[in-house]
Amino acid sequence: MTTLPPEPEPTPAPPPSSCQRVIAAYDRIAEVDRPDIWITLRPVEDALVDAKAVDERVRTGADLPLAGTLAAVVDVIDVLDVAGLPSAGEDVCRVGATSVSRLTAAGTVVIGKTNCDRFGGDLEHTHSPYGGVSAALNTACVSGSASSGAAVAVALGLVDLAVGTDTAGAGRVPASLNGIVGLKPTLGLVPKTGAAPCAGISLFARSLTLGQRALGLMTGPDGIDPLVRDWPPDVRLSAGDRPRVAIPGSDILTDLTLRSRSAFLGAVSALRASGALVEPVEISALLSVGELIHDDGFTADRQRVAEAGMIALRMLSEYDALVLPTVADHPEVAEALSDPDGVSRRLERFTAFVNLLDLAAVTVPASPSDLGPYGVSVVVRPFDDQVAIDLAAVLTDEQADFPYPAPGADLVVFGAHLRGQPLNGRLVAAGARFTGLVQTDEGYRMVLLPTDPPQPGVVPVPAAGERTMLSGERWRLSPAALGAFAATLPAPFVLGRIRLENGETPLAVLCDQAATANATELTKYQCWRAYLRFVSTAGPRDLGRPA
Amino acid sequence: MTTLPPEPEPTPAPPPSSCQRVIAAYDRIAEVDRPDIWITLRPVEDALVDAKAVDERVRTGADLPLAGTLAAVVDVIDVLDVAGLPSAGEDVCRVGATSVSRLTAAGTVVIGKTNCDRFGGDLEHTHSPYGGVSAALNTACVSGSASSGAAVAVALGLVDLAVGTDTAGAGRVPASLNGIVGLKPTLGLVPKTGAAPCAGISLFARSLTLGQRALGLMTGPDGIDPLVRDWPPDVRLSAGDRPRVAIPGSDILTDLTLRSRSAFLGAVSALRASGALVEPVEISALLSVGELIHDDGFTADRQRVAEAGMIALRMLSEYDALVLPTVADHPEVAEALSDPDGVSRRLERFTAFVNLLDLAAVTVPASPSDLGPYGVSVVVRPFDDQVAIDLAAVLTDEQADFPYPAPGADLVVFGAHLRGQPLNGRLVAAGARFTGLVQTDEGYRMVLLPTDPPQPGVVPVPAAGERTMLSGERWRLSPAALGAFAATLPAPFVLGRIRLENGETPLAVLCDQAATANATELTKYQCWRAYLRFVSTAGPRDLGRPA
Repeated sequence: MTTLPPEPEPTPAPPPSSCQRVIAAYDRIAEVDRPDIWITLRPVEDALVDAKAVDERVRTGADLPLAGTLAAVVDVIDVLDVAGLPSAGEDVCRVGATSVSRLTAAGTVVIGKTNCDRFGGDLEHTHSPYGGVSAALNTACVSGSASSGAAVAVALGLVDLAVGTDTAGAGRVPASLNGIVGLKPTLGLVPKTGAAPCAGISLFARSLTLGQRALGLMTGPDGIDPLVRDWPPDVRLSAGDRPRVAIPGSDILTDLTLRSRSAFLGAVSALRASGALVEPVEISALLSVGELIHDDGFTADRQRVAEAGMIALRMLSEYDALVLPTVADHPEVAEALSDPDGVSRRLERFTAFVNLLDLAAVTVPASPSDLGPYGVSVVVRPFDDQVAIDLAAVLTDEQADFPYPAPGADLVVFGAHLRGQPLNGRLVAAGARFTGLVQTDEGYRMVLLPTDPPQPGVVPVPAAGERTMLSGERWRLSPAALGAFAATLPAPFVLGRIRLENGETPLAVLCDQAATANATELTKYQCWRAYLRFVSTAGPRDLGRPA
Repeated sequence: MTTLPPEPEPTPAPPPSSCQRVIAAYDRIAEVDRPDIWITLRPVEDALVDAKAVDERVRTGADLPLAGTLAAVVDVIDVLDVAGLPSAGEDVCRVGATSVSRLTAAGTVVIGKTNCDRFGGDLEHTHSPYGGVSAALNTACVSGSASSGAAVAVALGLVDLAVGTDTAGAGRVPASLNGIVGLKPTLGLVPKTGAAPCAGISLFARSLTLGQRALGLMTGPDGIDPLVRDWPPDVRLSAGDRPRVAIPGSDILTDLTLRSRSAFLGAVSALRASGALVEPVEISALLSVGELIHDDGFTADRQRVAEAGMIALRMLSEYDALVLPTVADHPEVAEALSDPDGVSRRLERFTAFVNLLDLAAVTVPASPSDLGPYGVSVVVRPFDDQVAIDLAAVLTDEQADFPYPAPGADLVVFGAHLRGQPLNGRLVAAGARFTGLVQTDEGYRMVLLPTDPPQPGVVPVPAAGERTMLSGERWRLSPAALGAFAATLPAPFVLGRIRLENGETPLAVLCDQAATANATELTKYQCWRAYLRFVSTAGPRDLGRPA
């Protein structure tokens, strides 16, 4: 009997090269005809020089995680060799901003600097000497803020990413009004070197996954910005399966337009369906903190900010996140021209408190497609950026599988710490993140330990003796979570390296050899869950008997 | 042959009871005749009621770590059932301050409230409606600050402890001028509930050990003060053997009186002799931060504080501590009366920057006995309180063996992590604290592992086989330090529980049984150091050979 060789699998088309992306982008720029977006659009030849360099580095094997992506940068942030506002004196920048140079080092090509308003001070975007920027999809409406040219460039598909600022909401409001993702990380994670005075750097992106990957590359000290902060050693790495989410009470939601309320409540339903525990809370104290920014911006009376902040943070302390509308409505350009201050206050109502209270936020599009762009914000405590990303990923229907580069270590578990098992809650409460199933190499055995709850004991076995490959789960823990786990680990368990079938040797919960001496052998099940299934089939009386 | 029974060891005299301490204290109060210290000295009968209750609780077995100690409290902090300033309206306090009630709960008896000045706003102490307080030993000189009545009460031996405040230096300056210990912990560790507005609570004590023990009992959330902070998960638990210490440059030291300079340089010599690496640094930026407090106190211009703070903290980041004079000189009362503002500025010159920059400090007497009181301050980053205590203990010649109740776990090590061994630096760099030698029970063996550097592998042995008691060292690690240790632990080492001879079961560095199969047996040495001594005696060629 002869068999035909298997058909070769169809090779997927390679992703477009950086040069192809640049050429397509400039075609699209001509097509959309929106010169209001740009202050400086680089000549296509200049962008192609950078793109060719990226393509060449990829060809020769360089690992460029953002190769093939294009970016715009709001004009108040410096880009090496690109001119900004003529008023800045020197017309070509000699030192690029850290936030931007980290993107270009990872393969992004910057194609230009976008229009912006009053260096970040207002949101309604009608003050630029270069003219206002209308929204991406409805040019009768405002595009939202100081960073709005950048947001519109992403929304119209001209670039994949755009670097902006965010003080009162300049990184979130235009994302919301233009239907894209806006990330406002914890202050200090991304150096502000090379940016005009602002609370922090923000990022616009066409998807949450791309935004998070790019932002992850932008974090960390640059040796210049003294306000850069490191991730804390107990950083939370996951929102967990049952995050507690606060939302505004009905008094606030009735202020929204019908369309906005409908979109927001749709997002809340999606969060509930994903397992979140959602509760309405009174957020007027938070919103009043935001109003202080109008009095004198970031020099608002410290005592008032501190007092309002304490009340607000105490309220938030019982939740993993606050989910709220990014904006209440979408003002028209005509309205902004006649009442700029009123429109500005309306636009930043739900965003201005965030930086004043040192919180982090992500805004994502959450709207039935027929209703136009509408953004929902996920607001979290400082350094809980991954919690915000996890919740936002529910709304964008993406898989948030690219945790921030926070410190941590992997731990493989085999028994009561597996998902759904009695001790799993300890990992979740410590902010640990499930990162996948793993298989050991063939040199292990598993026994039943007389612990409460019953747990498997896993030990390595030399070449002789009953041994197999075992299945377990890999979790990522912060250093403090791993330390607390180790500190409370009872005998006969030990933490030691395990050999996986792929050759990796992460830390794992193993057990002392001596404890396995007279224990029931479970090796043949290869997996604690398989043994539990056997027990439940055979009936509880068989629990713990030799299998 | 008969032997005489051994003579009974002499029983040490029991410490004086709380009642005995109270009676002796009131005798001493009459003897020193310093009514300027007190605003409210409790009737001795009232103090005896509290003292009897303490003695009774001790008799019935209660664990009261501060039983037998007496305290005074500065008048701006509430004491339950004790009257304060008549101007406060109600003359007897109904709710005690958290800081004070935690001391009384631990057995301290409060005997009165002490004179203070302008609710903590000035340091020269000539403004109290109850009159000024002169220094403890030289009544022609000022006693130093808002909390100075409290400091003088400790200095004259009337009480063991006194609770004060510290904003610009009120907890450190009077300690220095009266020759006692003053602790100004990291802001937020001790709740301010029940205290007048101030940066933080401070503590005066007759010894550093007593002060630290008491302050340790005063830390932690009380559910009322919203500004209370927890210890961070990577808290440093030790200054280590070779701390890096910054001191002011000679430009600053020439401003000191000859006596002060001599005392300060004596302290620096003692630190050097203890192993500290001492370097002079430029501290004028730090001192200028302190001057901002004069402009508008704690509402000093934020931007200026932030900028000066950044420069100062960047400078400090290369050191474990800054050691500097607490005061430049000791002004006379007459001088303070004629130029209160000038004297106040002089007194707080070296202390005012500390709270503005969120630093912690300890001041201790450091002076040849014939020169009168003189204090040296150890200033550290927030939460490095134990580092400051360790360095201050060098100056008071005390054993700093009472670490703060910060989070952490014990780890027993047997080989390359022992003090003086190649990997010990990793524990020290992680802020771990050596807490003593330990001995396992008899059920262990030790082998030589072919690691680099060579290390012992310790494993439990069942009843049969070569086994013994092993000697190791116990270290205390923060959760983050333990997590980082676990994350980088290489095979064949594991972390697991070990049984000590006293029945404790701390975590220890053990090794996988399989790795001991063909390894050289070292069990008979009982201790890695003993084996190393044998190797060095026998010559390097014997390293690793069967013993």
